Amino acid sequence: MQCDMNSTSAILLVHCPDRRGINAAITKFVADHQGNILDYDQHVDDEAGIYFARIEWDMEGFALTREQIVLAFTPLAQGYDITWQLYFSDTTPRMALMVSKLPHCLYDLLARWQTGELDVEIPLIVSNHPDLEPVAQRFGIDFHHIPVSAQTKPQQEAKQIALLKDYKADFVVLARYMQILSGDFVRHYPNRIINIHHSFLPAFAGAKPYHAAHERGVKIIGATSHYVTEDLDEGPILAQDVMTVSHKDAVTDLVRKGKDLEKIVLAHAVWLHRNRKILVYGNRTVIFE
Amino acid sequence: MQCDMNSTSAILLVHCPDRRGINAAITKFVADHQGNILDYDQHVDDEAGIYFARIEWDMEGFALTREQIVLAFTPLAQGYDITWQLYFSDTTPRMALMVSKLPHCLYDLLARWQTGELDVEIPLIVSNHPDLEPVAQRFGIDFHHIPVSAQTKPQQEAKQIALLKDYKADFVVLARYMQILSGDFVRHYPNRIINIHHSFLPAFAGAKPYHAAHERGVKIIGATSHYVTEDLDEGPILAQDVMTVSHKDAVTDLVRKGKDLEKIVLAHAVWLHRNRKILVYGNRTVIFE
Amino acid sequence: MQCDMNSTSAILLVHCPDRRGINAAITKFVADHQGNILDYDQHVDDEAGIYFARIEWDMEGFALTREQIVLAFTPLAQGYDITWQLYFSDTTPRMALMVSKLPHCLYDLLARWQTGELDVEIPLIVSNHPDLEPVAQRFGIDFHHIPVSAQTKPQQEAKQIALLKDYKADFVVLARYMQILSGDFVRHYPNRIINIHHSFLPAFAGAKPYHAAHERGVKIIGATSHYVTEDLDEGPILAQDVMTVSHKDAVTDLVRKGKDLEKIVLAHAVWLHRNRKILVYGNRTVIFE
Amino acid sequence: MQCDMNSTSAILLVHCPDRRGINAAITKFVADHQGNILDYDQHVDDEAGIYFARIEWDMEGFALTREQIVLAFTPLAQGYDITWQLYFSDTTPRMALMVSKLPHCLYDLLARWQTGELDVEIPLIVSNHPDLEPVAQRFGIDFHHIPVSAQTKPQQEAKQIALLKDYKADFVVLARYMQILSGDFVRHYPNRIINIHHSFLPAFAGAKPYHAAHERGVKIIGATSHYVTEDLDEGPILAQDVMTVSHKDAVTDLVRKGKDLEKIVLAHAVWLHRNRKILVYGNRTVIFE
Repeated sequence: MQCDMNSTSAILLVHCPDRRGINAAITKFVADHQGNILDYDQHVDDEAGIYFARIEWDMEGFALTREQIVLAFTPLAQGYDITWQLYFSDTTPRMALMVSKLPHCLYDLLARWQTGELDVEIPLIVSNHPDLEPVAQRFGIDFHHIPVSAQTKPQQEAKQIALLKDYKADFVVLARYMQILSGDFVRHYPNRIINIHHSFLPAFAGAKPYHAAHERGVKIIGATSHYVTEDLDEGPILAQDVMTVSHKDAVTDLVRKGKDLEKIVLAHAVWLHRNRKILVYGNRTVIFE
Repeated sequence: MQCDMNSTSAILLVHCPDRRGINAAITKFVADHQGNILDYDQHVDDEAGIYFARIEWDMEGFALTREQIVLAFTPLAQGYDITWQLYFSDTTPRMALMVSKLPHCLYDLLARWQTGELDVEIPLIVSNHPDLEPVAQRFGIDFHHIPVSAQTKPQQEAKQIALLKDYKADFVVLARYMQILSGDFVRHYPNRIINIHHSFLPAFAGAKPYHAAHERGVKIIGATSHYVTEDLDEGPILAQDVMTVSHKDAVTDLVRKGKDLEKIVLAHAVWLHRNRKILVYGNRTVIFE
Repeated sequence: MQCDMNSTSAILLVHCPDRRGINAAITKFVADHQGNILDYDQHVDDEAGIYFARIEWDMEGFALTREQIVLAFTPLAQGYDITWQLYFSDTTPRMALMVSKLPHCLYDLLARWQTGELDVEIPLIVSNHPDLEPVAQRFGIDFHHIPVSAQTKPQQEAKQIALLKDYKADFVVLARYMQILSGDFVRHYPNRIINIHHSFLPAFAGAKPYHAAHERGVKIIGATSHYVTEDLDEGPILAQDVMTVSHKDAVTDLVRKGKDLEKIVLAHAVWLHRNRKILVYGNRTVIFE
Repeated sequence: MQCDMNSTSAILLVHCPDRRGINAAITKFVADHQGNILDYDQHVDDEAGIYFARIEWDMEGFALTREQIVLAFTPLAQGYDITWQLYFSDTTPRMALMVSKLPHCLYDLLARWQTGELDVEIPLIVSNHPDLEPVAQRFGIDFHHIPVSAQTKPQQEAKQIALLKDYKADFVVLARYMQILSGDFVRHYPNRIINIHHSFLPAFAGAKPYHAAHERGVKIIGATSHYVTEDLDEGPILAQDVMTVSHKDAVTDLVRKGKDLEKIVLAHAVWLHRNRKILVYGNRTVIFE
């Protein structure tokens, strides 16, 4: 899909019980106000009986202002029991990064940001180790070192959350942040914390997945990006990818090769999130790609 | 997408110049006649300014008969300059097979047909060699041996076409048929002859692609299924897949490994065609998957 | 790798503690008796300190007979503490098939056998259901229906084993055989029973993996072929492959798409086993491909 | 393969006409001087009758010095008509980068270098545009802007070569350098200039491959890394990878998605080159992976 980068578009994400005419009602709403639909993607889960859609239309020439859209769409949404989110393409979201010691995902995201491939603001990097501060400096981003131990976790998480609020982070990316976030932390950013796990989940959840994969003798390794929930490695999956390995690969080879998977999969998940292409329902995702 | 196998559905394939409201008009047409949309997939090619859609709805409870749909949709189609095709899921298409000596794609398609995975009728198999007649017999399908040489091609093609007409073939699958069809033959079945080429087109078009791939030292080989047009190996692409190879693979290894690619890719293309999931425009395809 | 199909080759599989000179000693053994090495593949597991190799040489012009090879290699093997297997390419192994109701893997293997792609003898098909007997008849293979229930399992497994012995099966392929074999059964064919599991193991072991994959919302599904051991779905992995899926895929779509994975992965594992390209150590495999 | 990073190893790359005993002779050479083989990979091209091998052994405890290896191996090499290269793992090669305006491959390689994943020295970056100088500065690397036009090409290439010599570059990586190098330039660094082409070669050689891929309607795009020879896009292939695309992808989507392919494929080729895992013969490569 391609759209003019210079004009603003509205992005409407909806889901509701599937009913005859829902599709027509929504497209009619846009058409009735002279909306030029740029992209329209819908999905019906027949088993669950749920209708999902992502509609993007050009705001140029549209008959309603942003506030009027909300007013006009509310009664329609109520009539069809629609849960909805409305975004505008000229709002650049603010992405906070949390890291530990491994730099590959951090470098990859910063390069994508620098080159304009990933259209976000990156106000801060938070880490439980000081190691990656030079990388932050190299890209001119505030770096906050907040060490975390079992004892200090509650107060340190409070500091982290305060920082994220201060810096007005819209969402958080754990770029190989090697700490488990508490349920309390997670509840501040529901479906807005993106993690990369270095295995093909649900295989090899938990610590040291490459060691486990090597021990099991698998012929393929993977990486999984998911929203963080209170259950470790159990959140809704955003993206996965895999690569072939063999008996020739020692654990260190899996670690080395897996880095590329982690980078690609995490960056793809972040791109999907930033571009409002994800709908979460239950513990699953609809990806409008 | 899942739909009740026991009820009949209507499948409407449309494309037209993209205009404000086209989407709403079509969905409204179905909704206005109490149609329950089972599957709705649309695509806009922004560059070309073309709107494409595949709409499938349940005929149970629909207010129009098959003939009435045609009458009712015609004025709407004219108003929006829509090119359209209408199918019903209870019509099983008749697939003719053309083969030479290699049996792997033939066996694969026959097994998929026998097991119900591919819902077609297979009235006949045509071949320029007698070798695969035992396979046809094993599955109880008429086999016609029509040898073709440079001299006899016109009259032999005439025989082939007569057979296809006699057996009421709706479409033709070249399951490694090692002869080039004339433009005259092709014009009898526009976008209804499916070929499998044993390379990742447009790389290695023409004869002996595995030899050419080996000679070039590629690290990946592929297979491509496309509609046959008058230009050899140039028709609209339906499906492609690839696999990794290495310097260890001799040409015979590429041939052996490539067979799996050919089977999978051809069977997928046939499945897409049979289930009305392909729209051709220019020399490209929209695949509603 | 390519070798003349008409001449006989010897295939030696070895593994032993890694020691300086082991490589030279084995290649020298072959060279000293005028052996022309057709293929030589070796692997050292540095962590475990184990040396693995597969050496294939031409028997034409080799100075030793088959029996003399055994006599001559035994002292070398003892000196280096080598565990070894010796095969000759002119011995065609006998493969028994066990199936239930699903025909796709059965058809696929039978077609590969018929077309010469898989060089085995298939003396019999054993099933706990009568459904696939027509397929066996179509290919002219003995079919034995041995129903199995929780109560009758021990005596029915005894019948199965007796059949396998009568028919002189060298190895057994479970082509979607939906019964768990007892440890007693498995011990009759150690590392000679090949299963296909319809998931990317270790994810989704056990029953209904496609349902579990759908429930978890994974973006990739897989299939795994492994040797059967007493621990369900825990045996050494021979081959794995994956394909991309999306939220659009219902469980029935995963089942449909997964069939291709199952066929390809199982056939590849069988091919590796038949061509003596697998070494098992611990619960892992070295694949000489 | 894993080896102790702290000790030095010798890497010997050989190819020669395949003769009985060549394998034994080489392994015996290493064993006779107390060499502990860390990695030994060999390949015989049966068609061409050529033997290839890469042998890596620990220099600790080896009976010969670096100079003595050369002296001792020379007669053996002459006897078997062996072409050979000898490297030592403690020599870090110097990699020059040539770029134009696109930063993604440059950032990716610099990040791999910074994080120690790619063990090279990067003495300089040469570009025909000034755009990426800030990236070079960010990583503290000398940047030379040498504009090139059709008229100035000979003298500007002379400047480039002089720079590469001054900075003692061992090999050159074209990280999306959008200029064709002259045959004269290429001859200074035979099999030591690595390019990334943004298509699955030989498909879509030349300019604007993503446009051509879109126009042709392919379902898969790729990237190819190869050594630069005098024939554009025709050099020996080092690495290739692909990804699935669909009718939904506009050219701009192909460009965006392809960047990840380009990064991964180029970085992999550079890693192979740096670690002496490539043998070129004719226009093909043996990759010891």
